[in-house]
Amino acid sequence: MPGQPADAVFLHIHQQQRETIMNHLDTLNKHFQKIAQIDHAITFLQWDQLVMMPPGGSRGRAQSIAELTTMRHELLCTPLLGELLAETESDEPLLQRSLTEMERERRQAVSVPAELVRAQSLAGSACEQGWRVQRRENDWQGFLENFNEVVALARQSQALDEYPTPYDALLDLYCRGDDSTRIQQIFTRLKTEIPNIIGEVLEKHADQRAHLLGSFTIDDQKRLNARLMEILGFDFERGRLDVSLHPFSTGARGDQRITTRFRETDFFEALLATAHETGHASYENGLPERWDGLPIGSARNMCLHESQSLLFEKQLFLAPSFLAYFTPIIHEHLPQARQWSAEQICFAAARVEPSYIRVEADEVTYPLHIILRFEIEKELINGTLRPEDIPEIWDAKMQEYLGLSTKDNYTDGCLQDIHWTDGSFGYFPSYTMGAVNAAQLFAAITRDFPDWQASLRQGQTTFIRDWLGRNIWNKASSLDSQEILIQATGEESNPDSFLSHLRRRYTLD
Amino acid sequence: MPGQPADAVFLHIHQQQRETIMNHLDTLNKHFQKIAQIDHAITFLQWDQLVMMPPGGSRGRAQSIAELTTMRHELLCTPLLGELLAETESDEPLLQRSLTEMERERRQAVSVPAELVRAQSLAGSACEQGWRVQRRENDWQGFLENFNEVVALARQSQALDEYPTPYDALLDLYCRGDDSTRIQQIFTRLKTEIPNIIGEVLEKHADQRAHLLGSFTIDDQKRLNARLMEILGFDFERGRLDVSLHPFSTGARGDQRITTRFRETDFFEALLATAHETGHASYENGLPERWDGLPIGSARNMCLHESQSLLFEKQLFLAPSFLAYFTPIIHEHLPQARQWSAEQICFAAARVEPSYIRVEADEVTYPLHIILRFEIEKELINGTLRPEDIPEIWDAKMQEYLGLSTKDNYTDGCLQDIHWTDGSFGYFPSYTMGAVNAAQLFAAITRDFPDWQASLRQGQTTFIRDWLGRNIWNKASSLDSQEILIQATGEESNPDSFLSHLRRRYTLD
Repeated sequence: MPGQPADAVFLHIHQQQRETIMNHLDTLNKHFQKIAQIDHAITFLQWDQLVMMPPGGSRGRAQSIAELTTMRHELLCTPLLGELLAETESDEPLLQRSLTEMERERRQAVSVPAELVRAQSLAGSACEQGWRVQRRENDWQGFLENFNEVVALARQSQALDEYPTPYDALLDLYCRGDDSTRIQQIFTRLKTEIPNIIGEVLEKHADQRAHLLGSFTIDDQKRLNARLMEILGFDFERGRLDVSLHPFSTGARGDQRITTRFRETDFFEALLATAHETGHASYENGLPERWDGLPIGSARNMCLHESQSLLFEKQLFLAPSFLAYFTPIIHEHLPQARQWSAEQICFAAARVEPSYIRVEADEVTYPLHIILRFEIEKELINGTLRPEDIPEIWDAKMQEYLGLSTKDNYTDGCLQDIHWTDGSFGYFPSYTMGAVNAAQLFAAITRDFPDWQASLRQGQTTFIRDWLGRNIWNKASSLDSQEILIQATGEESNPDSFLSHLRRRYTLD
Repeated sequence: MPGQPADAVFLHIHQQQRETIMNHLDTLNKHFQKIAQIDHAITFLQWDQLVMMPPGGSRGRAQSIAELTTMRHELLCTPLLGELLAETESDEPLLQRSLTEMERERRQAVSVPAELVRAQSLAGSACEQGWRVQRRENDWQGFLENFNEVVALARQSQALDEYPTPYDALLDLYCRGDDSTRIQQIFTRLKTEIPNIIGEVLEKHADQRAHLLGSFTIDDQKRLNARLMEILGFDFERGRLDVSLHPFSTGARGDQRITTRFRETDFFEALLATAHETGHASYENGLPERWDGLPIGSARNMCLHESQSLLFEKQLFLAPSFLAYFTPIIHEHLPQARQWSAEQICFAAARVEPSYIRVEADEVTYPLHIILRFEIEKELINGTLRPEDIPEIWDAKMQEYLGLSTKDNYTDGCLQDIHWTDGSFGYFPSYTMGAVNAAQLFAAITRDFPDWQASLRQGQTTFIRDWLGRNIWNKASSLDSQEILIQATGEESNPDSFLSHLRRRYTLD
């Protein structure tokens, strides 16, 4: 336009570009919110499958979930989405972050084409089905036949060469931001120090610490576990507690479903699982509402997710000051448990003993089980170890780390876990990274609240939830995991706090 | 090809056409099976919403169900589906029937455009929400403001002029095959005869038959109701019993979910609801597997569906011979009920009394409540009655049919039902058509099995399930409702059996 200053023209163009981009952002948000509605359906259909569904429903349920999963994959892989994301960027950091997380989710979907998804799903089902029998029968050769295919398919993702190593591509699905180099460093440190701690503990407590065995009705235990959840801040207007074969936590905004399992002879196991799952559920319900349905609004990664559950279980629930408050509540609900004082319960919970089975391992020996799996699956995916060589290396590492041999004993050795059967390589490290992060976060909380023990002794836990809400939950995926940790604790993941915690809790009486 | 006989060429063309049609059929089947997978998800998300979901989940659940419903509507309305159906026909009667049912489902979806679906859903929600308060407060004027919009939108479907009357278009959604002329005929007969039956009953039993009141724990009742379901042939490997505010039945192949509600003071109400919902569930689980996911494979219509539930509740469970078997089982589970013999329970269950509230009405007066609603909603949708004139006509009909006045009493009059609030016009008749069909089917069963009472007295119900399986369930939507009834009983819906049943059960001691 004649006479109009150049700046105004530029401003006008700039304005138009901004509007286009805002339209794009709106379209993208709606697209991902649509995907989130499908995720909502899948989430609750899976919960129902594990908690409510009668056996006759299996076939129909599998078909429906498969159809919804395909629809979800198609929505992520539509070429239009790729084009729109390629055309859109923002100088507003949070908007740009949101776009980056969208692109990440899109690329992960595109890197596993529909046929590969199907092949993996079939091979995974076959391997898992077989494993249920083969584990019982110590049948490594039978397992290997299916497992070779699972490993081969896991190594076929198109994204593998975008990462420093193929294993890092799988790790990225669960431990986004915590790569294999970082994990290796932390695990090396743990591998050096934990055996010393085990030695100290066993020397001090040659006596075997007893389990708290008795007879406790399931109904009484249910009420006790619900009470624990309330004290830990769980809102039953926004969630449920149910029973399933393996405890888990799932759900959506305002509706967190956690499960536990009860044993008539042991009331403590369910309480630990309930505290653990309450941590997971609290993270999910604490995610900021403004990003609902967007990738930026999801929990950051499994290393942080597991840090929340382990913080609730190991740092909070098992803190002697909290158990001092909670033991009278146990006594109130379970008359048979009145024989044990808070101190006796703490003492029993601090039992340490090298053992074969990961899921039954205590807090001190548990990381060695994880490190063993991390080292093996890394080599497996990077192609430096063949599946058939797993039993030998498993036995060697068990001997080295825990002084136990699994020679010819696959049932209690390399066939004990379900994770590898369906190709979930890269998940194991998050358990121990979670333990490390939990101790580090709890140390920061206790620095910020020097009177924390007095508060816990009165059953007050809100200060912990508020702190985690501000420092972890509210940040969702707007930062990388290590950035979140630095802002919260002043440093990246560092095993110091975890090692101090182990020493403090397990070597002192 | 030179020298080839003309017949062979024709045969070749014919073969090609056949292949094209088989391809089309395959595509169509897959398309409808995909829709069925979405329906599966919606079904169980809605069950969860009513039975399990905490309040905090409402918003997310509504969004997810809305998204899935939109996807379903889009899949039915895609122009490609219409083209494919227009191009495909079959000379194999069952295949052609399958195509006809597909086209029917498509046309019903297309006749309600997406904006109308949304407008109806919004107006329905607003009217239902308001009604919950307005009914309590006897606020007809407040209700009318929302209700005018609900009626107006119900009359906007694009299919209205394809039917003899606009009301028949809505009736077709629930009572497919039973049009307003047929229903009117049957209801006219009932309207004439039922008042005589009521007169006879009240003359004979001037004494008020007592309710079976006492105190019965919910846990005991739960076990008793599950036992009843087992005796009625319900397979708990293929379904569940739960509790909800209003009893209902839903589910999918192999996974029928029924609910009931328990009152501590009255054990009989839950048993009736359980028997009723077991009938619905049995129909659904008895549909033939070969048509899973296809419109031809659905239950025929609500007049038949309700006939199954009422057959289980009124004809089977309340049969004196069955109660003779079941009463000792009641005594076993509920010690407090041991004071009542089977005869006393039958006698109490045969209480008749004209009353205001449909859902509390006895079997004899119930049809009059339905006829009143049918007559009013028919005029409403056909445009010969304005919503504001409902209270006056309601009062007049209540006086005429049941001798009760609802003048100025909207709470116990025209505001008592939820059905109209969300625009479900055309549903009410299925209750009484179901009662008529149930009695007619049961009469046919008793003709085929002259020893039926001896069987029921031993708790044997399989012969009834097998008969219904062959004659009703297995036919799904492969025939019209009246064709199914003719094949099963030798005639179309005929109120004779129902009227005889009422006379037999309620006028004799």
